[in-house]
Amino acid sequence: MAMKAKKINKMLDEAIPLRHPLKLNEAMRYSLLAGGKRVRPILCIASCELVGGDESLAMPIACAIEMIHTASLIHDDLPCMDNDDLRRGKPTNHKVFGESTAVLAGDAFLSFAFEHIACNTNNVSPDRLVRIFAELSSVIGSKGLVAGQFVDIESEGKAVSLKELEYIHVHKTAKLLEACVVCGVIIGGGNDNDIEKVRIYARFIGLLFQVVDDILDVTKSSVELGKTAGKDLVSNKATYPKVMGIDEAKNFAYHLMNQVVQQLACFDTAKAAPLYHLAYCIANRQN
Amino acid sequence: MAMKAKKINKMLDEAIPLRHPLKLNEAMRYSLLAGGKRVRPILCIASCELVGGDESLAMPIACAIEMIHTASLIHDDLPCMDNDDLRRGKPTNHKVFGESTAVLAGDAFLSFAFEHIACNTNNVSPDRLVRIFAELSSVIGSKGLVAGQFVDIESEGKAVSLKELEYIHVHKTAKLLEACVVCGVIIGGGNDNDIEKVRIYARFIGLLFQVVDDILDVTKSSVELGKTAGKDLVSNKATYPKVMGIDEAKNFAYHLMNQVVQQLACFDTAKAAPLYHLAYCIANRQN
Repeated sequence: MAMKAKKINKMLDEAIPLRHPLKLNEAMRYSLLAGGKRVRPILCIASCELVGGDESLAMPIACAIEMIHTASLIHDDLPCMDNDDLRRGKPTNHKVFGESTAVLAGDAFLSFAFEHIACNTNNVSPDRLVRIFAELSSVIGSKGLVAGQFVDIESEGKAVSLKELEYIHVHKTAKLLEACVVCGVIIGGGNDNDIEKVRIYARFIGLLFQVVDDILDVTKSSVELGKTAGKDLVSNKATYPKVMGIDEAKNFAYHLMNQVVQQLACFDTAKAAPLYHLAYCIANRQN
Repeated sequence: MAMKAKKINKMLDEAIPLRHPLKLNEAMRYSLLAGGKRVRPILCIASCELVGGDESLAMPIACAIEMIHTASLIHDDLPCMDNDDLRRGKPTNHKVFGESTAVLAGDAFLSFAFEHIACNTNNVSPDRLVRIFAELSSVIGSKGLVAGQFVDIESEGKAVSLKELEYIHVHKTAKLLEACVVCGVIIGGGNDNDIEKVRIYARFIGLLFQVVDDILDVTKSSVELGKTAGKDLVSNKATYPKVMGIDEAKNFAYHLMNQVVQQLACFDTAKAAPLYHLAYCIANRQN
């Protein structure tokens, strides 16, 4: 996984050269290359390989998904949104480059992701690419990431039901993870059955990811997390520990991990190993 | 043209239904259906018809381009950008729905545009669609719209050369207009030669559009324009009248209109008529 992440970092680095306008591209590079865990691109590549596709086939899509994720982080951190000062242990994009540049860097990523796929995916029939565009674009906007962030912000300071909480996490986190595996399988040449199987896998790890994130927010310090800890509590934001209590949230994470293992049982064990491993890493991460 | 605009308005209305989360979709509809002139979608459809394609083929792309344009307007108006209160005679998006919703509505449009094309364009070979995705995505990000807005904001309060001024307008305005005609010709089944011809046409009307916009800003009132007049002057922003004087700017507009007429001379006159007419409308608009 560390090797995959290194390759992905290299490709991301090359994708955004330092061209004119310099400060805009610096701002994009600052957040894109801030050392995330690259869970999403690794997931995309692993899903491509799961159905026999080569890593290189999935790489442009994997990088594009990390760009989309980065765009959502930059915009989520804005003063008018979550107003966050720290991200991945560094000052947030608008703290370094100013608010207008942060808005524009996010906007640029949202379109560059599609450009990167359209211009760098070779040796793939165009109908597969069109399916990928449909899948990926649908998880970003008002039926995906944006909807999740919108409901999240609207829910601040209000009593939030478990149903609303799940809506937020499905849209903010799970749908993009689902797109990672689905796009990986499509580009790798998988069939509709393969797609359905990885969709279910992704839904479980999506939930798992968020539950663990929420638990870390209340159990770790800012230094350990590399971002402002305890912030969800202060802002009265919906979290699993808040709704169900910290012990029940930990039980829920354990239950989800068991479900993930069951979902992968029907795949070739060797090829599914990276997807097992990823779920394990998500469940056991410390920041 | 009025008939085309009416059809486009109907399709845009249907494209964004009032679903959950309601306020986000209301915010999107507010700006999308605020009664713009629909120059871009009309240009896209006219270019499709120029090469013998049917209006219905180009409609999803035409609508998508209007969504991208709307996203850029919403974000340009934000307090951290141009901080504008009026747009098309109505309060700007963030004035009505708040800043965070305005950021998210813009983000949603940037991805929904691609979703709308991928899911609604029928009876077209997927390789044409991939070309359209490449063309369209490249004019939005850090080589297009976003770059133009970035340099525009950075140049405020500074002395701006004609070269910088043209960079801003090419990126903020001309490139998207160029994408309108190029995508229209691609989806309509035009060849590379057709594409090159309409590219040049689009570059001239792109410049024309901005020169006229700048002239209107200093010669018309806010009520006449439906947006805050004289704002470019107050904010010390780069404009053609500022750099070359109002009379020379008017001469430049006249020269550009002549160039447009020359570019279209090589096309079938009847089929090129809507493109002539559009250029004429751009040159002679009063708001």
